[in-house]
Amino acid sequence: MQSDKDEICELVAKWMKATKEGDSDTVLSLMADDATFIVAGQPPFGKGAFASATNAQETGSMEIDGESEVLEITVAGEWAFMLSHLTVKVKSEGTPQMIRAGNTLTVLTKKNGRWLLYRDANLLVPVQESGDAT
Amino acid sequence: MQSDKDEICELVAKWMKATKEGDSDTVLSLMADDATFIVAGQPPFGKGAFASATNAQETGSMEIDGESEVLEITVAGEWAFMLSHLTVKVKSEGTPQMIRAGNTLTVLTKKNGRWLLYRDANLLVPVQESGDAT
Repeated sequence: MQSDKDEICELVAKWMKATKEGDSDTVLSLMADDATFIVAGQPPFGKGAFASATNAQETGSMEIDGESEVLEITVAGEWAFMLSHLTVKVKSEGTPQMIRAGNTLTVLTKKNGRWLLYRDANLLVPVQESGDAT
Repeated sequence: MQSDKDEICELVAKWMKATKEGDSDTVLSLMADDATFIVAGQPPFGKGAFASATNAQETGSMEIDGESEVLEITVAGEWAFMLSHLTVKVKSEGTPQMIRAGNTLTVLTKKNGRWLLYRDANLLVPVQESGDAT
């Protein structure tokens, strides 16, 4: 039987794979309906706004690839939180590849036996191809 | 008897007051010894680095004032997480006031009956005096 930490790592792997494949239905299935994302410079946004941004990505023929390194996971019953380091590479046709990297702090919740992303603070900043700001 | 949420709101109020008063001992007493802070563009740092930065602030005659609006608190046993909106005003002698604002996602832990800050993701960005980026 998988541990909660294993299941959460599997969620992260599925998220990264589905993002790379442009499979937004799978990405959306990995978050709670009342998920909230916080990023710099804009108000918190939810699953609906996340879906809209993903659709824009699909129609814009944008390629997104990323790597996530889980630094720690703490499980407390039906809640868990995770510290990760994330690198995301974005490529649109005719433009140079853009790389963003940094840490994320994520709260997850277990609903009906499945872990789902619930709150996510994303601190990624642009980095040079050769380096890494964090 | 105070609820956990009340105690966490009180911790936030104490933190903001002590920061304004330059009382770094009190601020440091409100975080776990293994607290970790994540911000954009640098690796996660702990209580030691936080203390060093605070000391630099004290010797640099910098005035820091801020307001924190707690948006939600979820308590799960000895753990809790909180979403806040924070505005910080920094004034050094001879320089214009700088304002930074944005959201924070914070994990807290209850140790020996006291809530302490444990993980904090700070998404503050510079804002104009008249506006607010978030």
